[in-house]
Amino acid sequence: MKINGTAYRSVWVDPTDESSVCIFDQTKLPFALEILHLKTVDQVAQAIVTMQVRGAPLIGAVAAYGLALALDKDPSDASMEQNASMLANTRPTAINLRWALGRMLAKLREVPEKDRRAEAYAEAGRICDEDVAQNEAIGRHGLELIRDIAKTKKNGESINILTHCNAGWIATVDWGTALAPIYMAHDEGLPVHVWVDETRPRNQGAALTAWELGSHGVQHTVIVDNAGGHLMQHGQVDLVIVGTDRVTAQGDVANKIGTYLKALAAHDNAVPFWVALPSTTIDWRVTDGIREIPIEERSPTEVTLVAGQAADGTIQTVRITPETSNAANPAFDVTPARLVTGLITERGRSDASAEGLRSLFPEHTN
Amino acid sequence: MKINGTAYRSVWVDPTDESSVCIFDQTKLPFALEILHLKTVDQVAQAIVTMQVRGAPLIGAVAAYGLALALDKDPSDASMEQNASMLANTRPTAINLRWALGRMLAKLREVPEKDRRAEAYAEAGRICDEDVAQNEAIGRHGLELIRDIAKTKKNGESINILTHCNAGWIATVDWGTALAPIYMAHDEGLPVHVWVDETRPRNQGAALTAWELGSHGVQHTVIVDNAGGHLMQHGQVDLVIVGTDRVTAQGDVANKIGTYLKALAAHDNAVPFWVALPSTTIDWRVTDGIREIPIEERSPTEVTLVAGQAADGTIQTVRITPETSNAANPAFDVTPARLVTGLITERGRSDASAEGLRSLFPEHTN
Repeated sequence: MKINGTAYRSVWVDPTDESSVCIFDQTKLPFALEILHLKTVDQVAQAIVTMQVRGAPLIGAVAAYGLALALDKDPSDASMEQNASMLANTRPTAINLRWALGRMLAKLREVPEKDRRAEAYAEAGRICDEDVAQNEAIGRHGLELIRDIAKTKKNGESINILTHCNAGWIATVDWGTALAPIYMAHDEGLPVHVWVDETRPRNQGAALTAWELGSHGVQHTVIVDNAGGHLMQHGQVDLVIVGTDRVTAQGDVANKIGTYLKALAAHDNAVPFWVALPSTTIDWRVTDGIREIPIEERSPTEVTLVAGQAADGTIQTVRITPETSNAANPAFDVTPARLVTGLITERGRSDASAEGLRSLFPEHTN
Repeated sequence: MKINGTAYRSVWVDPTDESSVCIFDQTKLPFALEILHLKTVDQVAQAIVTMQVRGAPLIGAVAAYGLALALDKDPSDASMEQNASMLANTRPTAINLRWALGRMLAKLREVPEKDRRAEAYAEAGRICDEDVAQNEAIGRHGLELIRDIAKTKKNGESINILTHCNAGWIATVDWGTALAPIYMAHDEGLPVHVWVDETRPRNQGAALTAWELGSHGVQHTVIVDNAGGHLMQHGQVDLVIVGTDRVTAQGDVANKIGTYLKALAAHDNAVPFWVALPSTTIDWRVTDGIREIPIEERSPTEVTLVAGQAADGTIQTVRITPETSNAANPAFDVTPARLVTGLITERGRSDASAEGLRSLFPEHTN
């Protein structure tokens, strides 16, 4: 997608230095657009842990390049297995990370050491290209939903879409998952307006989704995470679309903490609640999302401290709780399939159910 | 309740100057404990609008003193009616404000001008004393719920109670509504632990509830508003208790934005969801809360700007959104009675229904 007229992806290899993988430092957005050059696998792991790079599909792509950087230095079997394992352990919830590393290993184990470096970069590049193509397809399948709502609107009336966290192009290699249909609808002239959940504690909505949408010219309004239910009660939300970090074979959806509350409100108000995902996000081995998906517990300081831009333009961190109060910080929750209207994948839309997923991905039928 | 061993109420008349009404500046908590001396009705109105004083019951009590301050200067009918109307318009959602001013007017209209000043202070004092007595009674009736849960726990296991916003002593004249049962349970040695929703955008949970509970020695953990549903899914919440700004004759509950989402999650996970209120919070003229209760829309800057304490101890404000992004800020939502397990009032507990309320308050039967 474009920033000030220039097209970017969210990860790329420096054209002047193949041992340098470039990302935007997402902890600096929306206040500064800084490109980080990652030159070692440890720098990649650190960027994932500190969430300089985040978003389930993007983490997978960046980790694949991380493995390429490791093999650049040491293409041995031991290096390959150990670094893949280290990268897989950077974050527990998103399945794409494990999927991308598994794909890299399956490919590279068949390749002699001397050819591994080149093959690793090539395979990471294919993972990126496929992610872009999948998200573009997700966008087209989701766009149909928005067009259908547009037909029910009077002339010029906005189509109001609520999203939680950031599942935009900056969370993927390009296009995004949940935001891809919105960008396409905007690009074809449909009057979309997005309610952007700020998404505490890390404010990915307020910082990243608002920045992405604003940069692309999409109308949007930031709201606190508490507000969505009230808006739905008053008919101000036509559609909810979110991304996901892991979908079970039965259609349960792990996503950013708070997604479950929005799904409950959507269900209570008969607002369609759709989840957009590339099939790499499906964990075919898991059925009961609430019991089986590991939920990352992050630092309490993400709750007690808030970073933002002070009046003088500097980035400051302020504490919002008493010094003696504890905080807890589960980073994801699981929305049961019964609350999900449907899934938007690169192969089309389906019910959030084993049958629905099997109809799109028959090759995964047991 | 006590702060560092000294007992306070949340509003009082300066014993050395009867024309000075004292409150804590709640916009400075938890970082500083500052007492404001309000000497004119305009200062009272300003303190309510800026939320230096907030909490539905406390606003009513402070507004009553505001009218006394006005009559102190000018005890005429015109002054009385005009200032009561001005005070009633400071905030739209809480009904206690209108109730307290209505009670003052009903009393003072019968009193000759020369006696109005003294009677106004006396009546405001009675409103305060009755609020304290009502909240103490609410505490006793709510305590029974906590004792019942304690009986189901193994030795020493915490009773986990989730609350949203601040309905503690600082939101009332003393004791609080939702927190009164918790203080009483703690005081009799029950191992209560409170999940404190931070309550964006103004963070009354992170700032006020956490401060109150910590000052009284009650175990608590601050969480983002997004987290409560996940905790309930995993059996980590035994009970939800919240306050309210207005309850309809049918049991619908207006409260801080986001309450509805927690009620949905409690219902979905069979967690009891109780609402604590003095009967002055009931609006007997209103039945359909979602359609009839006016919801205050506050400044977008409450969403885009966050205030807290910087590392150097100063209070700083930081912006968390892109400069060009809009924000919306509905301050309350309405939880339908069907999601409310029951109401805790000064006369006991009831279903959240017309029948339940009539059983406790038969004098309001039409």
